[in-house]
Amino acid sequence: MAQSDEQAIRALVATWIDATMRGDLPQVLELMADDVVFLVAGRPPMRGRDTFAAASRAVAGKMRIEGAADVQEVRVFGDWAYCWVQIAITMHADDSAPVKRAGPALSVLHRGADGRWVIFRDANMVTDASA
Amino acid sequence: MAQSDEQAIRALVATWIDATMRGDLPQVLELMADDVVFLVAGRPPMRGRDTFAAASRAVAGKMRIEGAADVQEVRVFGDWAYCWVQIAITMHADDSAPVKRAGPALSVLHRGADGRWVIFRDANMVTDASA
Repeated sequence: MAQSDEQAIRALVATWIDATMRGDLPQVLELMADDVVFLVAGRPPMRGRDTFAAASRAVAGKMRIEGAADVQEVRVFGDWAYCWVQIAITMHADDSAPVKRAGPALSVLHRGADGRWVIFRDANMVTDASA
Repeated sequence: MAQSDEQAIRALVATWIDATMRGDLPQVLELMADDVVFLVAGRPPMRGRDTFAAASRAVAGKMRIEGAADVQEVRVFGDWAYCWVQIAITMHADDSAPVKRAGPALSVLHRGADGRWVIFRDANMVTDASA
């Protein structure tokens, strides 16, 4: 039986978290559109897969990330969808105590001509949760 | 000429900011779905128009808000849409210095049976911008 769009999007979220934990940047990059935009508090929008790749390479190997993403909601509108996920991560750097961060993310996804869903816009509200 | 969906959504954003600055809560409440969810860093999701109304009444009259919203992108998918807005506000309270906040918001909008667009999910990444 064919995977539903919602199942495909939930699988994308799981793959994103798994690949991020493994430090598998090529896998993560396959999950976003060329012209993706990442929105976050306190920084300008990060535009494009190449910019994401460069930023990720700049911190590669400097920390290990454990995390989980709990999908709260997926709604599909033809070739577009949104997904609300609750994220909790712990960042382990060699030279400092683990840092816990948590919060929601709201993503707009697009299904390309090849049938694969990718992240198109991403609003990340993950913040310090050590307290 | 009929207003396009994008024009209607841009008008909604302008009305939201204008009504918020005027402290016109009933007008703001008309711009969101009954079952709206507001997502923000560091706090649990705020679910429902009634919860938004109660939270707004709790701070009513305690501050004056000046602000502007610069629409970056609107995409419409039938009766659903998303809108990315860059927000800059200054909060004036009687007993403290003005506080500047800025950042993006990513909203999912829905067109109801009455033909009006309302905010359905909202990811707010507006943060301190005093520096």
